[in-house]
Amino acid sequence: MNDTGQGTRGRILDRGLDLMSELGLAGVTLGVLASDVGMSKSGLFAHFRSKEAVQIALLQRMAVVAQDVVVTPAMALPPGLARLTGLVHNWLGWTTKAGLRGGCPVAAALFELDDIENDVRAKVVAMESHWRWLLAQLTAEAVAQGELRDDLDVDQFVWETCGVYLSHHASRRFLKDPHADQRALRAFEALVQRSRPKAPPVDDNPPASRGPP
Amino acid sequence: MNDTGQGTRGRILDRGLDLMSELGLAGVTLGVLASDVGMSKSGLFAHFRSKEAVQIALLQRMAVVAQDVVVTPAMALPPGLARLTGLVHNWLGWTTKAGLRGGCPVAAALFELDDIENDVRAKVVAMESHWRWLLAQLTAEAVAQGELRDDLDVDQFVWETCGVYLSHHASRRFLKDPHADQRALRAFEALVQRSRPKAPPVDDNPPASRGPP
Repeated sequence: MNDTGQGTRGRILDRGLDLMSELGLAGVTLGVLASDVGMSKSGLFAHFRSKEAVQIALLQRMAVVAQDVVVTPAMALPPGLARLTGLVHNWLGWTTKAGLRGGCPVAAALFELDDIENDVRAKVVAMESHWRWLLAQLTAEAVAQGELRDDLDVDQFVWETCGVYLSHHASRRFLKDPHADQRALRAFEALVQRSRPKAPPVDDNPPASRGPP
Repeated sequence: MNDTGQGTRGRILDRGLDLMSELGLAGVTLGVLASDVGMSKSGLFAHFRSKEAVQIALLQRMAVVAQDVVVTPAMALPPGLARLTGLVHNWLGWTTKAGLRGGCPVAAALFELDDIENDVRAKVVAMESHWRWLLAQLTAEAVAQGELRDDLDVDQFVWETCGVYLSHHASRRFLKDPHADQRALRAFEALVQRSRPKAPPVDDNPPASRGPP
């Protein structure tokens, strides 16, 4: 690991992530970022060779922050539906929980970069694919535990969960709907209920409580 | 109606709408649009006084195109679930059906403009609110006809339908998932099934077919 300039670079990335959450990827140019951190453009150029290099570094920083705010606390929960539900709850509105001014840069990039081909898009595709893979893993754990039904289409479940997230993002941040959180939780809960086993498994023990998680 | 320059203006708007669907609102500057239609920037300036004026005119043009491709054919269907389902099916991927190169400018704007305050944002808020009002009206018609249950939370239904649309947009255009259409139709169908009356209404006539619409 190269520590030279790491402090400055870290400060640039923290400010840049905040900017990116507010302005989207396209809004964070070398000029805007330099002005925001109080550096010259040539000073910034010593750290990042291009706008694309800045954007990719900011997306990597975002992944670290999201890991701390969204993933790590969920992974501390018991595997299965508790962990999956925890992850989804942490994910909804995560940028606010992380102290960022704006919305989720990846959600915005899904619409901003849909018709572009470059390294930034490839980075977002990789991040979004990894994220959906994680959601699928936790969903599959809930299936394995018998909390979700064993013929569940896990990819469809993840697809619909992503729809809840995007609808929440649009209604909370863009439409400023005060009921956005409540609507998202209801939608996800309905998806979970629809994915529950059809009937309790045949067992010899008294049934455990089957209330909502 | 002022016809002066309407032909040129119409041509500018058609090209601009195509550009906006590809580049997002921020991508359509006076310079980009002038270059695309083969005019000078000052020539374009005779038609539109500012970037914001262009963007608002393009959004208005979009509404006209979407009306033709999405709304009008649906309104020709019988009121109730048939019309609602028709509207949602026409909506999914509507820009491709309209011959545009890119995605839905309003969907992109929900994420692009979430942290900005200007007249363009206000225009998108008005369009999105009107659109959700229309979805709510058609959903309420399906409730009134007894096809959806009478205690349905119509706003929640619309909220979740918007999630299906956004997830479809992201998976089809950004992730290029070949199953995007099928996943969206399954998600919407599941939402409809969950919103059906719990039991058939008490009636004296033999029940009609209750297969999928």
